[in-house]
This record gives sequence, structure tokens and C-alpha cells, in this order.
Amino acid sequence: MTQFRLRMAVTLKPEVLDPAGQATQQVVHERGFPEVSELRIGKVVDIAMNANSAEDALAKARRLGSEFLANPVLERFEVWVQSDET
Amino acid sequence: MTQFRLRMAVTLKPEVLDPAGQATQQVVHERGFPEVSELRIGKVVDIAMNANSAEDALAKARRLGSEFLANPVLERFEVWVQSDET
Repeated sequence: MTQFRLRMAVTLKPEVLDPAGQATQQVVHERGFPEVSELRIGKVVDIAMNANSAEDALAKARRLGSEFLANPVLERFEVWVQSDET
Repeated sequence: MTQFRLRMAVTLKPEVLDPAGQATQQVVHERGFPEVSELRIGKVVDIAMNANSAEDALAKARRLGSEFLANPVLERFEVWVQSDET
């Protein structure tokens, strides 16, 4: 077993309104960043996990995402695994 | 000007306690994922921005992070820019 590090990004689906992101975009727009045309806020989940392989770690992380960390109605998620080469 | 897409991950510094992450880790640990040894929750901010170059977009995003999106006492942030090649 090797310890793998994974990062999951849980974001609202594009068709779901993001009031917090819109409010933040408006603030930064008014305070010196008029070039920001879109800003959406999601979650990032950093995970350390023992697994037999990177494939195994990714498969478990996908189950974690769909069963616990993301709401499948409103959100989607992506997972990265860090190389186990040091 | 080109529209660039950026992703910022805002995470708690390693020395800062993350009660939400610990609670989540305990739940997933008890419900079928004992191999998860660490779980920490942060924010992801997806940004669309007009800029002259990827360098310019990254520099503006770093200012956004340090001035608005991250708390420098408790958090750190990383920024990625997506390639403008299509």
C-alpha cells in the first residue's frame, strides 16, 4: 500500500446559479478588476489515502465524490491524483 | 485581449485546524473508506478574465487572491491558467 494524495474540485453545474460567486465578482469588478467577466466558487477537497495504485486511489476518490462530497443534482466533481514518484 | 480561464485553489495553511474536514474524514472513515488518512476542505474559484497574455492573467489573479479571495493569515492559494490554444 502506498499513500496517495488526491485533490477533488467540487463545482456547481454551469446551469446552477452561484449567488456567492456573483456577489464576489461584483465586488472585484468595482474594486479594480473590471476584466473579470465570470467568477464561480466551489469546494476543493485534499485527500490522503492508502491504495494499491493510482488507479485504485482514483476509483475510491470517485466513489467518495459521488457518495459523500458532491451533490449530484447541483454539482459535479473532478479528481486528480499526485504522482507517487518522489 | 484574450479571454483566459483560471482556477484558484484557496486552502487552509497546514498548521490551521480544519474542523469541517476532520468531521468529514471521520464520517467517510466510518462509512467504508478507512483508507482515507487525511481530508481537508478549501475553496476553488473559477475565473474568466480578459488579459493580454497568460502572464498578465496570472498576475491579476494573484492580486485577486491576495487582496480579496484568500485570508493571508489562515490560507494560501495557488492559481492555474488554462491554455489559450483551442
